[in-house]
Amino acid sequence: MNRYLNVAMGQLGPIQRADDRASVVRRMCEMMREAKALGAHVIVYPELALTTFFPRWYIEDEHELDAFYETEMPNAETLPLFALARELGVGFYLGYAELAIEAGRKRRFNTAILVSGQGRIIAKYRKVHLPGHAEHEPWRRFQHLEKRYFEPGPGFGVTRAFGGVVGMALCNDRRWAETYRVLGLQGCEMTFIGYNTPVHNAPAPAHDDLSLFHNQLALQAGAYQNGMWVVGVAKAGVEEGVDSIGGSCIVAPSGEVVSRCLTKDDEVMVARCSLDWCAIYKRTTFDFDKHRQPHAYGLIVERKGETLAADGTPLAVTAPGH
Amino acid sequence: MNRYLNVAMGQLGPIQRADDRASVVRRMCEMMREAKALGAHVIVYPELALTTFFPRWYIEDEHELDAFYETEMPNAETLPLFALARELGVGFYLGYAELAIEAGRKRRFNTAILVSGQGRIIAKYRKVHLPGHAEHEPWRRFQHLEKRYFEPGPGFGVTRAFGGVVGMALCNDRRWAETYRVLGLQGCEMTFIGYNTPVHNAPAPAHDDLSLFHNQLALQAGAYQNGMWVVGVAKAGVEEGVDSIGGSCIVAPSGEVVSRCLTKDDEVMVARCSLDWCAIYKRTTFDFDKHRQPHAYGLIVERKGETLAADGTPLAVTAPGH
Repeated sequence: MNRYLNVAMGQLGPIQRADDRASVVRRMCEMMREAKALGAHVIVYPELALTTFFPRWYIEDEHELDAFYETEMPNAETLPLFALARELGVGFYLGYAELAIEAGRKRRFNTAILVSGQGRIIAKYRKVHLPGHAEHEPWRRFQHLEKRYFEPGPGFGVTRAFGGVVGMALCNDRRWAETYRVLGLQGCEMTFIGYNTPVHNAPAPAHDDLSLFHNQLALQAGAYQNGMWVVGVAKAGVEEGVDSIGGSCIVAPSGEVVSRCLTKDDEVMVARCSLDWCAIYKRTTFDFDKHRQPHAYGLIVERKGETLAADGTPLAVTAPGH
Repeated sequence: MNRYLNVAMGQLGPIQRADDRASVVRRMCEMMREAKALGAHVIVYPELALTTFFPRWYIEDEHELDAFYETEMPNAETLPLFALARELGVGFYLGYAELAIEAGRKRRFNTAILVSGQGRIIAKYRKVHLPGHAEHEPWRRFQHLEKRYFEPGPGFGVTRAFGGVVGMALCNDRRWAETYRVLGLQGCEMTFIGYNTPVHNAPAPAHDDLSLFHNQLALQAGAYQNGMWVVGVAKAGVEEGVDSIGGSCIVAPSGEVVSRCLTKDDEVMVARCSLDWCAIYKRTTFDFDKHRQPHAYGLIVERKGETLAADGTPLAVTAPGH
């Protein structure tokens, strides 16, 4: 037995504010055809793939804001993508802004869906780790208002799909080791992660030169430490004057990058991924049942932030065993 | 304010079974003098630094086994190291096998201590993640019996020392993201990690070519994802016919390697580390208080291993939010 899953990255170049969803869906359909020609069973698109990255603006008008969200999926604009998936037998992962009415309340999520090669939605994920800030901060060159425009999702789940066990995450989730571990503990063999990452990080411009390095480091560590494939796919390039990194890549359970996009435009790259390769890590170095020590992990769930002393400095606690 | 801590790696080359502790301590003292000459405030030695790596043998005779352990610290053989630390004003981290009598019971730990520049033990850590196996497995080219010869320690703590907040871990701990996170949640600014890592991994020889890559990947991810310095120090080279990796390195809170040993012998390398540099990560991308989402992390402590179906295959659970 060798379960191969051929995965395509459907990296998107910039989407300007004037670009309508129909034009973006046409670009995605073209990439899906390329992916099919390369033998792909599934194509991964970025986070918030249908519009420009709107959290860069402080938008006070609710109708103006709502226009960036999808209230149903599929809808008239995205239906061609679902139809093409069914026609080609190619599944996809798609990120978009979701506006849901739940218990009579308007709720907003940064969402990804997994769609089968029959064109059916088989799983939905709502982003857990929302970066940025909730209030207008005019000192920034551009805003990053995800904490204003979305609420966090409940958690990470996996789905049996494409012959394996597949997980989803979004953008900033990839920097948090907890994301991969919670998926790994559910047997996840491949995680899809779309992202939008501006090169410039306003609160920490010292990081700007390292954006691509940090992106790849986090994806590689998450893959290795859980013996899973990780597929990270960017929306890249200069959108409305803001430059975002590309660097979409497919990382093997060994932590090795096996495929990588080179441009900051629409670009399709593919890799043939053996899902059985996961076991070489999951059943040895990272055999959780043999080697994890949850008795020592309590703080991870008991505490959100650091323990700080009254003067704001880190609080040293006594080392156990001493 | 800029709190600089000058840290030396005291990488050790091989220690053969015939080498006595006095000869090893002489090598370590020589390295401590070199470290002092390079301006170091503290030197980090490897795991199980006083003897050859004895878990590679199945030892049935208890007296023969006991001879690899220290029953007190300092003791006659290690006292010169403590005296030199006091003389030079250089602190150190030292790994060794600890045999303790606690509640009338013989207990064995894979231990590290932190010693101040006044030559006083200020913290002790007992290894949490013991790799390898507990029973004799003669099919292996050599054994890795840490699960037989040690019991796991209670957890990870930090100590206020050398002008900052310092954590300790040992060897296999460095592959587990939980290690760094539990330390990071306690405000850790620098983690010392000694290790012994054979190039050949008997259950997973496909990993052998990647040993150095995996070592560095884990150290870099742990540093970056918690905005802390990480100092990994090897016992390297061919001991009793078994080759171990070197690759000792100092990793900045950015995830960048700033200093690295080049040989597989006794080698001192040093880096000038700004502890205040941590805040550039701890107060931005990895501001835990703002960005962590413990509501989604429950499985990390609730579950040791993967959830598997009755037939041994991974169990897919429903994706939350769907």
